[in-house]
This record gives sequence, C-alpha cells and structure tokens, in this order.
Amino acid sequence: MTANHFGDRLASAVRRVGTPLCVGLDPRWESLPVEFRARGSDSRAQRAHAYEAFCARVLHLVAGRVAVVKPQSAFFEACGWAGVQALENVMHRARELGLLTILDAKRNDIASTAEAYAEAAFDVAQADALTVSPYLGEDSLVPFATKARMAGRGLFVLVRTSNAGAGQFQNRVCDGDPLYATVGSAVDALNAGHVGACGFGDLGAVVGATSPAELRDLRRRFPRLWFLIPGYGAQGGTADQVRPAFDDHGLGAVVNSSRGILFPYHPDDTRWEAAIENALSQAINQLPKVP
Amino acid sequence: MTANHFGDRLASAVRRVGTPLCVGLDPRWESLPVEFRARGSDSRAQRAHAYEAFCARVLHLVAGRVAVVKPQSAFFEACGWAGVQALENVMHRARELGLLTILDAKRNDIASTAEAYAEAAFDVAQADALTVSPYLGEDSLVPFATKARMAGRGLFVLVRTSNAGAGQFQNRVCDGDPLYATVGSAVDALNAGHVGACGFGDLGAVVGATSPAELRDLRRRFPRLWFLIPGYGAQGGTADQVRPAFDDHGLGAVVNSSRGILFPYHPDDTRWEAAIENALSQAINQLPKVP
Repeated sequence: MTANHFGDRLASAVRRVGTPLCVGLDPRWESLPVEFRARGSDSRAQRAHAYEAFCARVLHLVAGRVAVVKPQSAFFEACGWAGVQALENVMHRARELGLLTILDAKRNDIASTAEAYAEAAFDVAQADALTVSPYLGEDSLVPFATKARMAGRGLFVLVRTSNAGAGQFQNRVCDGDPLYATVGSAVDALNAGHVGACGFGDLGAVVGATSPAELRDLRRRFPRLWFLIPGYGAQGGTADQVRPAFDDHGLGAVVNSSRGILFPYHPDDTRWEAAIENALSQAINQLPKVP
Repeated sequence: MTANHFGDRLASAVRRVGTPLCVGLDPRWESLPVEFRARGSDSRAQRAHAYEAFCARVLHLVAGRVAVVKPQSAFFEACGWAGVQALENVMHRARELGLLTILDAKRNDIASTAEAYAEAAFDVAQADALTVSPYLGEDSLVPFATKARMAGRGLFVLVRTSNAGAGQFQNRVCDGDPLYATVGSAVDALNAGHVGACGFGDLGAVVGATSPAELRDLRRRFPRLWFLIPGYGAQGGTADQVRPAFDDHGLGAVVNSSRGILFPYHPDDTRWEAAIENALSQAINQLPKVP
C-alpha cells in the first residue's frame, strides 16, 4: 500500500501521539461556555458562528495530543446552511493543525446518490473518513468505498452501534450469525486486497464500547478492520471494555469521547479550557497506549 | 386525528390532484438544460445556483399536477454549504406553491443527535416528511418520530429499498421473517395510536417498486403504513408492480419518479419544459388514479 492508504495514515497518526483517543466534536448550545453564547442564539447563523469558534478553540487544545477528531454533522446541520459552512471551516482548521478527521454523518444511499454524498464528504468537507450506514446492502457501500480510495480516504461502516436498542436488528441471528457479523463480513470482503502495511484495511467498522461481547466477537472475526469505538466515557463504556479491540502493537481501534472531553465543566466556568485539558489527560491515561 | 396529521394531509393532497405521483428533485449537472449551465461550474456556488434555478422552474411545472415533491439532499450537499442554502430555498418555494415536501436524506443516529437531524429537517428545511434509515434500531427512530409529530410532519423509514442488492441484509430471514418485515413491524408499532382518518398513520415505509413480491408482502402485513415507492420509471418499476400498494380508495402510497420526469430530453433541447410536461402527463396516466 502507498503512503496514501487511509489505514496506514491512521496507524502512523495514532503512533505519533501514542493514544487511540479520538475527540468527538458535538457542539451543543446549552453546554457551550458562556463566552460563546454572549451574542445570543436569535439566529441560526449566530449559533453556527459560536459552534465554529468553540470548536476552533477545542482543536487548538487537542492538536498534538490526539490524532483524530470526529465532527458530528447533525449539530451543525441543525443550524442550516450557516452550520454546514461552519462545519466546513472546522474540518479545514483541523486539517491545518495536522489532525485527521472522521466526518460522522452516517450517510447512506445508492448508486450516483451515494457518489454525491461521497463527493460532499471527501471533496467538499475534505474528510479523511466518513461514517456510513449499511442497511441498503453492500452495493450501496461500493460508491462510497470507491470514492474514498481514489482520494486516499476511508470509511467506517455502522456494524454494532452503542445505543441501548442496537441489538434489535443488529443481533438478529440468521443461520448462526447475527446481522452485525453479516454486515462485518461485507465490509471485510470490500477490504480484501486493500490491507495496508499496518495490518488493517482502509474500510473500518463502528463498534460500540457499550457491547463488549459483540466487540470481542467482531475483533475475533475481523482482525483486519479498524474499529471506530463510540460509547466510551459519557455513554458508559470503559477502558477495560475497549482493550480487546487492540492488537499487540496497540493498533486496530480509535476510541471516541465527545461530551466527556468537550463539556466537563459548568457553562459559567471561565476555566473551561483547563477542564478540557484535564479531561483529555485523564482519558489518554485511562486508555491503552499505542507504543 | 387533527388536520395536522401528516398521513391525513398526504391523503387530502393526493386526492386533490388525483394522482399518487411524487416528483423527485435530483439535480444532476450533466443533465441540466444548457441554459442553466451557461455560467459554468467553476465554483460549487455556481452549481448550487443552477440547481436552485432549475428546481424552481420544475416546481412551477409540476405544482397543481402532483401533490408531493422529494428533493434529494445528496446532490445539494455535493455543492457544499451553498448547495444546502439552495436546498432550503427549493423547499421553501415548494411550500409556497402548495406542494408537500419529502426530504430524502436517509438520516439516522441516536438520542440527541437524532433530534438535531430532525431539527434540521423539520425546523430548518421545514420538510413535511423525512426519509430515515433503521439500522440502529427502533430507539433511534423515536426522536425523529417525536419531533415529526410535534410539528404535524411524517417519516418514511427505509424498509425494502429499490437497489439490486437490497435483499442482502433486508431479506435475511430469522424465525420465518425477513428483516424488512421486522423493521416494518417496528415502524407499525410506532404508528399505533397515530392512525389518521384516512386509515394510515403518520409514519410510513420506503418500499421499492423493483421488488413487487416484497411490496405485496409488506402491504398485506402493514395495511396502515403509507408507502413511499422509489424505483418507478428509470429504475425499472412499472405501474402494474405498484398497484398492490393502494387500497380501494386509491390511497396508501406515493410513487416517486425523478430522472424520468426531470430529464426526458437532451440538455441542448430548448423545449425541455414541454418534455417535462409530457413526461409528467404520461406518468400520471400510467399510474393508478386517486378518485
């Protein structure tokens, strides 16, 4: 594989900082430090501007300490087109600071519509990776994978999510295999021939920290898939629960924390930056190291 | 149910025009009439502007002849924030013309993130309905349904899609039921207590015209779900294949056609508006009537 292989780029990046921690950028109006809310929330453009300013400050705090950030598209989209503009700016700023970006947008569609979503993620937002949803089938993942690979980018396909009701469809067993394993097999098949020097492919899986049995099962079945692990911290997942996701070199997963890093303070607390730095250090200390 | 029930509003609207045809707004640069491409495609803003201008003309051609339009978010998002602004304007224009809007964005996420997507669709874009993807489970659909209902809007959940590979996961059988039926049951359960005077609920299902056996099966199982039927026309679905979706009053489904209505001409053809009107008349004549 080339230096342009997303799996290898991710491996280099987490090795450089020594931690698999990924910081989720989920701006929430009520949780923002008051200084960003001073101009009010009368218009969506004002909220979008506050989100952008807050995320820019967070990016400066985390750059060099983590390898990856994961902006959550939904919170920006809730501010309309001005929010999408803010998201584009945040993605751009992250790149300038040397951070990899996973755009969490959970897109899914077929054929040329999937290509248009991939264009939005990889050409416009310049994401290093995009989360996608698999319900429509493997043929709906191919346009995303093709576009990602052409640009040296990656995908994380929802396989076993972190919500309480995730098992309703994902753990439905057919011929001995739960649906999450069938979906994982489809992602693994699309990875064939695209495994990088790091031992992992450029297409990965979203696997929640909150379901450790499924996480172990998926790691056993698919040793070549990067995992993006949500649900750590605020959602209840622990460092012990995510440990089986890693190989002997500390590679194989990035572990996302959003609220736990962004908002470990009261909005009125002017020392919010120190609180973020503290939460960041704690999460890095608790998680497995990447030697 | 009140006059603000989405299912009842949809029923009134299709009765008023007498046809279940829905026009999909999927602007594609290469297919646009040349007059919209005259300013070039150097910037994404130029493309966004052309998409908005083209869709505005299409809306004027179809208003009063169909009840519903379905803008495809992906093509607008591929133009970045300027495209999202254009999409908001197209949604607004459609409403002004008395058309119902189904925002085809196939969103999916959990908890407050799902709420943010619902805010983007229902508060910002003012969609009458939104398409959503069910892989994360019923608990991920609830925030969308709650927000939709508070505003008198609806959802269409992906149940059995129109792509060639749709069956890979959706037809996976467990205890005698294919996954699409299990997902349909979850949507039907969320509809309980919310069936309108028209006989249908405010949460519906996306069921492709290209899989007539599954369409008949789903109609038999879930007589109270509105169906949004893609795959008609350009994708190969026929009027005969969609007929079983309708009840004796001609209600129960809207049938979407995108390319077949938008682009039945060569881009150089200056008489493209006549071609659209002709394609519209043909589709209306071929589809079942709503008396």
